[in-house]
Amino acid sequence: MSNEAALDQNKESINIAIAGFGTVGSAVFNLLQDMSEEIERRLGESIRVVAVGARRSYPGVDFSGVQLERDVTKLALIPEVDIVLELMGGTDTAKELIIAAIANGKHVVTANKALLAEMGEEIFAAARQAGVVVAFEAAVAGGIPFIKALREGLAANRIDWLAGIINGTGNFILTEMLTGQRAFDEVLSEAQALGYAEADPTFDVEGIDAAHKLTLMAAIAFGIPLQYEKLTIEGISEVSLADIDYAEQLGFKIKHLGIAKRHENSVELRVHPTLIPKSSLLASVDGVMNAVMVQAHAVGPTLYYGAGAGGMATASAVVADVMDVVRQINLPKGSISAPLGYERVSASLPVMSKEEFLCAYYLRLSVADNTGALAKIATILSEAGIGIEAILQKETAGDHTPLVILTHLIEEASVKKAISVISQLPDVKAPIQMLRVDYLDKA
Amino acid sequence: MSNEAALDQNKESINIAIAGFGTVGSAVFNLLQDMSEEIERRLGESIRVVAVGARRSYPGVDFSGVQLERDVTKLALIPEVDIVLELMGGTDTAKELIIAAIANGKHVVTANKALLAEMGEEIFAAARQAGVVVAFEAAVAGGIPFIKALREGLAANRIDWLAGIINGTGNFILTEMLTGQRAFDEVLSEAQALGYAEADPTFDVEGIDAAHKLTLMAAIAFGIPLQYEKLTIEGISEVSLADIDYAEQLGFKIKHLGIAKRHENSVELRVHPTLIPKSSLLASVDGVMNAVMVQAHAVGPTLYYGAGAGGMATASAVVADVMDVVRQINLPKGSISAPLGYERVSASLPVMSKEEFLCAYYLRLSVADNTGALAKIATILSEAGIGIEAILQKETAGDHTPLVILTHLIEEASVKKAISVISQLPDVKAPIQMLRVDYLDKA
Repeated sequence: MSNEAALDQNKESINIAIAGFGTVGSAVFNLLQDMSEEIERRLGESIRVVAVGARRSYPGVDFSGVQLERDVTKLALIPEVDIVLELMGGTDTAKELIIAAIANGKHVVTANKALLAEMGEEIFAAARQAGVVVAFEAAVAGGIPFIKALREGLAANRIDWLAGIINGTGNFILTEMLTGQRAFDEVLSEAQALGYAEADPTFDVEGIDAAHKLTLMAAIAFGIPLQYEKLTIEGISEVSLADIDYAEQLGFKIKHLGIAKRHENSVELRVHPTLIPKSSLLASVDGVMNAVMVQAHAVGPTLYYGAGAGGMATASAVVADVMDVVRQINLPKGSISAPLGYERVSASLPVMSKEEFLCAYYLRLSVADNTGALAKIATILSEAGIGIEAILQKETAGDHTPLVILTHLIEEASVKKAISVISQLPDVKAPIQMLRVDYLDKA
Repeated sequence: MSNEAALDQNKESINIAIAGFGTVGSAVFNLLQDMSEEIERRLGESIRVVAVGARRSYPGVDFSGVQLERDVTKLALIPEVDIVLELMGGTDTAKELIIAAIANGKHVVTANKALLAEMGEEIFAAARQAGVVVAFEAAVAGGIPFIKALREGLAANRIDWLAGIINGTGNFILTEMLTGQRAFDEVLSEAQALGYAEADPTFDVEGIDAAHKLTLMAAIAFGIPLQYEKLTIEGISEVSLADIDYAEQLGFKIKHLGIAKRHENSVELRVHPTLIPKSSLLASVDGVMNAVMVQAHAVGPTLYYGAGAGGMATASAVVADVMDVVRQINLPKGSISAPLGYERVSASLPVMSKEEFLCAYYLRLSVADNTGALAKIATILSEAGIGIEAILQKETAGDHTPLVILTHLIEEASVKKAISVISQLPDVKAPIQMLRVDYLDKA
């Protein structure tokens, strides 16, 4: 084929460059090939991968007609490229590539939640100025088209709150602890062996990955800036099998949730293990699956469920984004919609501090087998204005009796103060476990 | 305000006309007013209702600045109107209005599933030719942004099947029958009193409303024409409380589902009461709520849950559509996306006839209290090549013994033949009830 013919062919298609050829990048490459006919039937235009950027070579892959670059940032400079897909992860090179692509008038699709949560403001501002799309469906809830639902589908609603299981690794671990009656460390090792958890699992088990996603979700839900640094973030590494079992006996499941709530003059943004009623739909979401429940003023509750991770599930979202860009590609530059769904962001909703949260709490204590202990604890709670919803006292194990208390709704500051008083009691043996309870109702 | 000033103000906003001021039309009117500031913050443009078409007057409503028309078709002729909202229902005047609006270059938003399922081809073709949008999120699954998810969010997938609870009235009735242990007729009367069911409940209880919705869903999922007339449609009026209870004992719930499956060379489109495993997410969807499960090749299973009806839930979808139109309003006319998600529709997938369905079946018979009956029935099934998954024989009631049989997967033609032979047996007393079972797995 002559250069002119090749150029002609490119002109008739939408040309994309893929940066990163790991699990997600290669899945996107394969999905685009596998579905090329169907995609053309949907769009009336074909999508061609004209360049791939990867640090190493992939001898088994047919890259014919594809320009290969070791230096991924060069993808931003290829004239015929319309859309750059950033699928490398990490924040340094990824940001450099995205900024360069935007500067060169390319649209961008990325799955990089960490980058967007932490540096999205700068990236989105650059995209707005250049009149290009930055799409990121794959950054939140994997293959579930949740960003689209929240930003467009629910756009006529005031979002009251949303709560989501948005980290598949964490949900796999909690599910396995319950069903296999195994300890956290043991299940984490298995998850690592299965490839569900990274060698360094910090992002997943300490809630950081979920917090990145919640940062993006909250900005879209409430029209507030991205403010990852203001989130309350707790992971699942302190959840014990005992907690899971006691919760079960009280009618709850423990799920790691990202929760964003709108109050009249503030927002509540938190990521932590949460007791939720067994009867709620979210409680049935097991293994590596994700789901988000949204309470919105007009439509009421809606829920979105699906695979939160995995190469093909993520590729599904990435390619959907590419197709969305194609649908907008002929818009005048000034008419491209705001990436987070708001042309004008609100600065008027401060993020609540942890101490202000109004929550119900699960407290697990280990007390000496002393009938006086419960009376003393109940008195302290009562004096602190903390109502008790339920108490579970288990058989004595050795010289300790496990005691579980569910409180009514109360400010976190009050609970923490009471915990600190209770832990001074001579009858109370171990550090007191505190988890939050959410009934996921309209309150 | 002078005419020029009024015109100027209109020029700065997107102007809409609402046809029909019943439950949905008035909810849309109120939602647009209530959310006007938020909508402007999202879009950077305001939306103004400049005209309302309704056959009667609404003295309590503040229509200042709104042109009122008794003849709704006149809304299509108002020069400053950008988008016409058809929220009347019915097919005659609604179609006339939509065709006129399209002919006058107006975009259209409608919630009218019956009209689109039966006459959508003509309407969409006219819209394509005129380069305008016809949006219809509210026509399927009420307030759940499901059309958007299926058409855009899952666009990179081959859809294997989808199954949905897409009629809230029917689901309310089935839920109440189970939880209240009441008969169909009694619950239907209550649903009518509560306003969940129409005075003439045919569309809801005979599956017609669900079939209209499935027609649209299948066209989007598979890129096939709208072909309502080829669906297999059965309602819930023949489901008895006994069936619901026996299903429960066998580990199933009976839900009225719309099911669309893609085979290699055909599609299966059917609407009927279905036994589904109690453990499936769809089985937990109760009351007037809707949900759709989609099995897609890249992302796997995803589920979408929310309110399927109600004024405000429907208005949520209608206004989201209006906002979507605004996002596309500056596209060149030739670049407006296909309403059903495919630029080129496939004619190559014929719709399977009922006899070809491969399904598991639930059979309920009433036999004389005669130990020979079961042997005879088992022989007939065995000779017809129908495997038995489970049998439930209940206590004798009077001179009859209820007998419930779950079959393995088998073609419907074979089951019907066997039923006709079995019903000739002198021991078999009443008409045999046949319901379909779907395990909602990947098969």
